Amino acid sequence: MDFELSLRPYILEVNARLAQLLPLETAEPPQLHQAMRYSALAPGKRIRPVLSLICAGENRRDALDAACAIEMIHCFSLIHDDLPALDNDDLRRGLPTCHVKFGEAIAILAGDALFALAFETVANQKSPFEITVPTIQILTTAVGSLGLVGGETIDILSEGKPVDAATLELIHRRKTASLIAASCEIGALFSKSNSRAKLREYGECIGLAFQIADDVLNETGTADQLGKAAGSDRERQKATYPAVYGIEASRTKALDLAKTASQCVQGLDNESLLQGIARYTVERLN
Amino acid sequence: MDFELSLRPYILEVNARLAQLLPLETAEPPQLHQAMRYSALAPGKRIRPVLSLICAGENRRDALDAACAIEMIHCFSLIHDDLPALDNDDLRRGLPTCHVKFGEAIAILAGDALFALAFETVANQKSPFEITVPTIQILTTAVGSLGLVGGETIDILSEGKPVDAATLELIHRRKTASLIAASCEIGALFSKSNSRAKLREYGECIGLAFQIADDVLNETGTADQLGKAAGSDRERQKATYPAVYGIEASRTKALDLAKTASQCVQGLDNESLLQGIARYTVERLN
Repeated sequence: MDFELSLRPYILEVNARLAQLLPLETAEPPQLHQAMRYSALAPGKRIRPVLSLICAGENRRDALDAACAIEMIHCFSLIHDDLPALDNDDLRRGLPTCHVKFGEAIAILAGDALFALAFETVANQKSPFEITVPTIQILTTAVGSLGLVGGETIDILSEGKPVDAATLELIHRRKTASLIAASCEIGALFSKSNSRAKLREYGECIGLAFQIADDVLNETGTADQLGKAAGSDRERQKATYPAVYGIEASRTKALDLAKTASQCVQGLDNESLLQGIARYTVERLN
Repeated sequence: MDFELSLRPYILEVNARLAQLLPLETAEPPQLHQAMRYSALAPGKRIRPVLSLICAGENRRDALDAACAIEMIHCFSLIHDDLPALDNDDLRRGLPTCHVKFGEAIAILAGDALFALAFETVANQKSPFEITVPTIQILTTAVGSLGLVGGETIDILSEGKPVDAATLELIHRRKTASLIAASCEIGALFSKSNSRAKLREYGECIGLAFQIADDVLNETGTADQLGKAAGSDRERQKATYPAVYGIEASRTKALDLAKTASQCVQGLDNESLLQGIARYTVERLN
């Protein structure tokens, strides 16, 4: 599809730089570095770092290391979420999860090491400190106990329990939308002209839309499409939009969010790519 | 003892600031914040943050948040090391470990959240960015796959296997000495007059001496002294100095390291406190 093709150069830039930033598999201890590279370089949509690059406008090269750091953080969170004590998932991106491949101890430590490497990468980037420090502020707020990790906690604690709409939105905003919003806002930091507040709002909307679409696809997709077992959320009695609103109303919510997102970026640099991503987020629903 | 009394004001400053920096137990999700506070505020020697404050000389107040961040990182590493998939420890600082008290999922996530909070705390500190960015560089290098997390990995992979002297030193340097050296170096960043290189070397020496002393005490101490089961390293066939060198030669190595440490800080600010800590590190052996 044409639009996916237009993202290709961004994805390739991220993949190439990630491969440079991660220590070699031979570095001591090799098992740890193999696990880090296995998980971080597995094929993925790279939606977060690509958003950072697009939001950085013409300064996208300056934003590349921060973008890769965001992908490392995303990857750390997936490795830990997949652990037996949490979601206990065996498949991720169509491959055995990190703990299935390398054992639980190495998976926990590989997640920790990717998390540290993310902040190391940002701290070492060749940008003015006036960009580096706010990048770390935005990232840590997005990821911490009041962001992604807090959202994952509420998600885990809600399993098997009836969840109201407010809690469901809280989980999804923290668990998914917060890091996507941070990706856009951090991109905007590097840009000369893009609006930080508008791009943050855009990121929040597509982040939430993206998670609702994921929930719907988990219900309606096949294992082949998903790269993991279909219907696994329902089986584990996870808090999902389809469980609370039904599939059709969930689709509508996602479409409305994509529309709001698209209004946020009118007139900004790279508008057509940003509009395209907003559409793509919900197009997966068709 | 007089010397421990002289560290007391530093420990109290750290404890008070840690209690402020950690989100309240009522913050959503409460279980996560309870676990974070339970582990981070449990009584501890606070040796790392105290070293940062002492190395900061007369600017110790400026270094307080960075010092607390180091304690959060130490605490994150303890929570994850204690997990069933790693060291499987039930007791820590005389209390049930985080996963015993809150369950494995919350313990993993509380560790992650403390890690994020540490970098958030440094990024938000009221110091010039010329101090903040190097602080994060030093910390991430000390903690990552080539530092603490890498050391823990080699340690886990070496369990039950014969370990040579070089591997043993690598484990201890990375697992313990690297964060203690970073604590000293970061303190020096804040100081106007202290020598960064000398304090880093001092930290490396006392860090290694401290871990050797811990190994010896694990063999010779009682559960009451240790706050955990005695002889647990031997039972798990952990790589330790007594296992490789015997108890007497291990004592001698620790004493030699303390002596080198003490030479590093001659003439520096707060020399007597730094000398005292070097002595204290190995005095526990008597």
